[in-house]
Amino acid sequence: MTAAPAFQVSAWLNAAAPVSLAGLRGKVVAVYAFQMLCPSCVSHGIPQAKQIQNTFARHEVEVLGLHTVFEHHAAMGRTALEAFIHEYRIAFPVGIDQPSDTGPVPLTMERYQLRGTPTLLLFDRQGVLRHTLLGVVPDMQAGALIARLVAETGTQPHCDDGACRL
Amino acid sequence: MTAAPAFQVSAWLNAAAPVSLAGLRGKVVAVYAFQMLCPSCVSHGIPQAKQIQNTFARHEVEVLGLHTVFEHHAAMGRTALEAFIHEYRIAFPVGIDQPSDTGPVPLTMERYQLRGTPTLLLFDRQGVLRHTLLGVVPDMQAGALIARLVAETGTQPHCDDGACRL
Amino acid sequence: MTAAPAFQVSAWLNAAAPVSLAGLRGKVVAVYAFQMLCPSCVSHGIPQAKQIQNTFARHEVEVLGLHTVFEHHAAMGRTALEAFIHEYRIAFPVGIDQPSDTGPVPLTMERYQLRGTPTLLLFDRQGVLRHTLLGVVPDMQAGALIARLVAETGTQPHCDDGACRL
Amino acid sequence: MTAAPAFQVSAWLNAAAPVSLAGLRGKVVAVYAFQMLCPSCVSHGIPQAKQIQNTFARHEVEVLGLHTVFEHHAAMGRTALEAFIHEYRIAFPVGIDQPSDTGPVPLTMERYQLRGTPTLLLFDRQGVLRHTLLGVVPDMQAGALIARLVAETGTQPHCDDGACRL
Repeated sequence: MTAAPAFQVSAWLNAAAPVSLAGLRGKVVAVYAFQMLCPSCVSHGIPQAKQIQNTFARHEVEVLGLHTVFEHHAAMGRTALEAFIHEYRIAFPVGIDQPSDTGPVPLTMERYQLRGTPTLLLFDRQGVLRHTLLGVVPDMQAGALIARLVAETGTQPHCDDGACRL
Repeated sequence: MTAAPAFQVSAWLNAAAPVSLAGLRGKVVAVYAFQMLCPSCVSHGIPQAKQIQNTFARHEVEVLGLHTVFEHHAAMGRTALEAFIHEYRIAFPVGIDQPSDTGPVPLTMERYQLRGTPTLLLFDRQGVLRHTLLGVVPDMQAGALIARLVAETGTQPHCDDGACRL
Repeated sequence: MTAAPAFQVSAWLNAAAPVSLAGLRGKVVAVYAFQMLCPSCVSHGIPQAKQIQNTFARHEVEVLGLHTVFEHHAAMGRTALEAFIHEYRIAFPVGIDQPSDTGPVPLTMERYQLRGTPTLLLFDRQGVLRHTLLGVVPDMQAGALIARLVAETGTQPHCDDGACRL
Repeated sequence: MTAAPAFQVSAWLNAAAPVSLAGLRGKVVAVYAFQMLCPSCVSHGIPQAKQIQNTFARHEVEVLGLHTVFEHHAAMGRTALEAFIHEYRIAFPVGIDQPSDTGPVPLTMERYQLRGTPTLLLFDRQGVLRHTLLGVVPDMQAGALIARLVAETGTQPHCDDGACRL
């Protein structure tokens, strides 16, 4: 398996410098693709992202937001997102998915072929996308999936019952 | 007691014509003052407003929203509010509180001296403001307060144990 | 309309003396018929009964429990109920519905023809049973129904739009 | 580390034969110590135990209940527990912790020095007690802890950063 494609992001909020999956190699990365006016993103996705931050150590799991606006573009620009991040007290980095010149779906959302929001993307320590979860995921399931990825030693090539990995 | 001052509203959404308190005389009116990026407005106020609509008959209780933006003005303009109303499936009329020329607090919010959002305003059948409730109000309490106002026959002057009313 | 039949109760817990509907004339009375091992009684009915106590003044609304055991009789005797009342910090009087000699359904439950638990019974100030609500009742609806009964002046015969009442 | 002491159980409900930790060697075992009249056991512990069952495969994680009655003994005997299991639709095996001759605390609870209910006990594949969690544990944390134990290959002795294990 190869590492996932890079994010195409026009700006990172809550981050001193641009964030890249490549730069997070060695950690499990949980990315919440959301829209600030998507009701179940607000009621479920953002609280779960915060819960992931609170449950796992930062040196093991990195939490990122990805603002993948595919509708109501005029209502969810950068200024609106900044207000949202402030009001909802979001502390993790949030990337703004790069708008497309040719359609409503932004570039990273298109590249990853996401079907909607919220979507939780889980990357392993080697940067391989391992789980794509659309909609409401129970906290216990999210916790279990992330913990299994954390438990993979795997910075070196290895074989297990399922496969041999680079 | 005299009827409450009129709302100063720059536009009404979800309404075929402008709404006025005076035009609703004879009904109890429940007005939810909110901001679309206020977390407890979204988690509590809007669902409770819908619940009021579902619990009381329309000929007895009218539910209105009032978008009282006093911060993050650039993020909560009319276009953004329209997207919010669409995504959160809000069916009651929502007035946009008229912005002030001289400060961040809009005119109706100022006139009613509201202290924040969400605030639930309850008007009786004569258009008198009877209750101003800031923050999270338990559903049972809201239901009880509204039902008591509904139960007041009161289109004519009358005395009860507490007072004589115009 | 005539006052509802008396409760047939083998013992009252949380009460200095036996409670009777007749003795509560002048108040609205909210009675929660429940079983201590009925899951939605525990998750919904008991908390709502407490909420009624907290929302309405005691001189206007009296809250009672009625333990209407119609199954698992051996598991829900008086000793078990006392432990339940202690652990769930129930402060209102709870009557034990009198077991029947001839079947599993206790006498008051039979007399009132209740269909299951939880059932919320609402009596007006004259002791007339006005609402019988089986299952999960939204807090707002419960609050509204009770408040309307509270708002009825009615200790004397009177006519309103709907009816003339004794 | 050595395997945890055996459970002293007077009867197993929901089980064709007595259950033992030794017999579950090779699986992670999640044991919920509870009392049927303990409010947060009912509102939190039992639902979380069911959630563990639903999240993890049975060949990897076994869920057990342990009825550790240390108060209100007369109200929480076997008949009452059977009614509780029926009404709350509990499908996992539940052991009745053996009452003590000398005090209110039953034998397994005493042996494991549990401080109250609910307590979640997590045993690894070798039968070693790894986590003892009293009170409300967030679902995500429970899921993560269990998944980490599942991920331990560990039927042979091994060393990791923290320790060498038998």
